[in-house]
Amino acid sequence: MIFKCTVAYDGSNYAGWQKQENALGIQSVIEKCLSKIYKTEIDIVASGRTDAKVHALGQVFHFEADERMSSERIQMALNTLLPKDIRLTKVEEEQPDFHARFSAKSKRYDYLCTYEKDNPFVYKYKTILARSVNVELMKEAAQYLLGTHDFTSYCSSKIDPRKPREKTIYRIDILEEGKDIRFIFEGTGFLRYQVRMMTASLLMVGQEKIEPIEIKNILEAKSKDACRYNVDGNGLYLMEVRYS
Amino acid sequence: MIFKCTVAYDGSNYAGWQKQENALGIQSVIEKCLSKIYKTEIDIVASGRTDAKVHALGQVFHFEADERMSSERIQMALNTLLPKDIRLTKVEEEQPDFHARFSAKSKRYDYLCTYEKDNPFVYKYKTILARSVNVELMKEAAQYLLGTHDFTSYCSSKIDPRKPREKTIYRIDILEEGKDIRFIFEGTGFLRYQVRMMTASLLMVGQEKIEPIEIKNILEAKSKDACRYNVDGNGLYLMEVRYS
Repeated sequence: MIFKCTVAYDGSNYAGWQKQENALGIQSVIEKCLSKIYKTEIDIVASGRTDAKVHALGQVFHFEADERMSSERIQMALNTLLPKDIRLTKVEEEQPDFHARFSAKSKRYDYLCTYEKDNPFVYKYKTILARSVNVELMKEAAQYLLGTHDFTSYCSSKIDPRKPREKTIYRIDILEEGKDIRFIFEGTGFLRYQVRMMTASLLMVGQEKIEPIEIKNILEAKSKDACRYNVDGNGLYLMEVRYS
Repeated sequence: MIFKCTVAYDGSNYAGWQKQENALGIQSVIEKCLSKIYKTEIDIVASGRTDAKVHALGQVFHFEADERMSSERIQMALNTLLPKDIRLTKVEEEQPDFHARFSAKSKRYDYLCTYEKDNPFVYKYKTILARSVNVELMKEAAQYLLGTHDFTSYCSSKIDPRKPREKTIYRIDILEEGKDIRFIFEGTGFLRYQVRMMTASLLMVGQEKIEPIEIKNILEAKSKDACRYNVDGNGLYLMEVRYS
């Protein structure tokens, strides 16, 4: 039986979805709890990894297990065992061919920035902006990223060279929410660091350090040396993974 | 010269305002930074202590120093040196007789609870309610705490027996804010654990485990054994200290 689980986590205390040497990964924390519940080793497969300090409201993973327990029981048992910064928000029974990674159709990531520099509660959850940014310029620049492109310029140089770099972005919204600025990215999928590097580049435009057209020039360079901008993982949220 | 400083902090990572054995106190973190700025040892005096994990939006402290630096410079220098979970929100020059503790006229503390049990971001900042509470009953019970009383029943047994236990509470509001419940307490001052023990007792009323009149019975017992209820420090916020 295949179970699809939706999980929310505060990534502050973790090395990311995958464990690192000497640092706790969210995946292994969940696997440990599941294995305790089923009294046998259980592996889970996520829609994709998230990096250190990155948060999730709607990460999805699946696992296979016998029918001993209902979805409700699994959710309750896991949330009892899991640390409070990892919460299962939904558990559903799925078709046998469901795969959290291969069945995913699209993903939404949000990136949060704030002007609230005197708030001691935000620094793990939003990137603090030292100076004001021009949102209209950022919106103009974001248009160049929409559609299907080879995003080599906007991804980590550590990425596997055999992996395809072509992705489609359906939606980029940049919203002013009180003292915050929220970037919303929706697309078929994102390469490692892609959302952070796109956000960082748009922020350079917003600070009027580069022209909007530079976003296009960087994209078209298709070179891992084209973009020198990145932002911290702390402001990044995996919001939702959509399946057909 | 006397400087009055308003400070906000996320108490999650600290032993409280005062340092404990092997655990960092907010006071010593600030004193260390100030002493670095002035290149001489500087002591600070707060309006009062806060316990481990308790947060502040408007804690106030004062210190004495020469006129080398303006208020603005002090604020900027301190916020540069301080960790991001401690932020100075205001620095003002004060009259020579100003004292953060003795000049304080009233204080406001808020306590936050939430029904959001599946939110991984709240557990350090709000107490999670497992079952629904009756706010109207809590409001009725809160009336017994208003006014001037000996609050011996609602305070830590560790308190100095020579200290006066009489305090005046001007205001108790209990607000439903979406999925949260906010308790607001304003008064001349509060004894150690007083806000937490009053909140815990009101929550017992809200859960219909005790009658509203019990709040009065506990108060009138004036005994440190009368109240067996307490809640975690994580939901408590020192919001404001008022001076005349």
